Amino acid sequence: MNQSTITPEIEKLLKSKNFASIATLMKDGSPQVSITWIDYDGTNILINTAEGRLKTNNVLRDSRVAIVVSEEGNPYNSVNIRGKVIEYDTSEADEHIDKLAKQYFGLDKYPKQSPDEKRIILKIKPEKVFHMKPPS
Amino acid sequence: MNQSTITPEIEKLLKSKNFASIATLMKDGSPQVSITWIDYDGTNILINTAEGRLKTNNVLRDSRVAIVVSEEGNPYNSVNIRGKVIEYDTSEADEHIDKLAKQYFGLDKYPKQSPDEKRIILKIKPEKVFHMKPPS
Repeated sequence: MNQSTITPEIEKLLKSKNFASIATLMKDGSPQVSITWIDYDGTNILINTAEGRLKTNNVLRDSRVAIVVSEEGNPYNSVNIRGKVIEYDTSEADEHIDKLAKQYFGLDKYPKQSPDEKRIILKIKPEKVFHMKPPS
Repeated sequence: MNQSTITPEIEKLLKSKNFASIATLMKDGSPQVSITWIDYDGTNILINTAEGRLKTNNVLRDSRVAIVVSEEGNPYNSVNIRGKVIEYDTSEADEHIDKLAKQYFGLDKYPKQSPDEKRIILKIKPEKVFHMKPPS
């Protein structure tokens, strides 16, 4: 197992109803961090956001990101990931946000979609992965 | 109210049993993020960590950090903060980790203290503060 392996335990963290924090870089190189929904397609981590948002603008300038996800109700089980945004997908982003709305809100359709906002999936390749487990 | 105001609502988020994600900068300028306990002294945000840890080494090189804290059980109530580490305090760090152990674990003494590890409080001055509230 190398440092970028997504184990089944980590995959479960990424695909359950857990919240992620994603760190991106501002124009001056300082860090920014925000809370987001998260998904995993078996290879890359998926963050569904919108064009024009702070983190979208940041990753279009510098693709390097860091993510931490902890298990809801068990925050000492968490995974720290560093990687890069390798693809920006707008074509499937509307269907994908509805899928996440089902997962996180139990709704068939994402309720907050603004007609002025274009959704985008950031596909993130994990390069360094650390699983922090609760003390046993 | 300016962009760096810690309102009473935000202070409550920072001083309750909520978990923070703190982003720091690696040597190559890429972001790193990890989950941590958090405290607030009325002026600065306090993160209690240890010498030699990744985030400690990172902030000693570049003091710029970002933090996000969400309310346990209500993750859509969160605060995003950007700022700088302005002080490194080892003198009160052992007492402070015991105080946090009480708050987070309900224990009188931090149970994981290693004799080889020197605790340190990172005092972070908030410069940009954004409170994200759940839809009403």
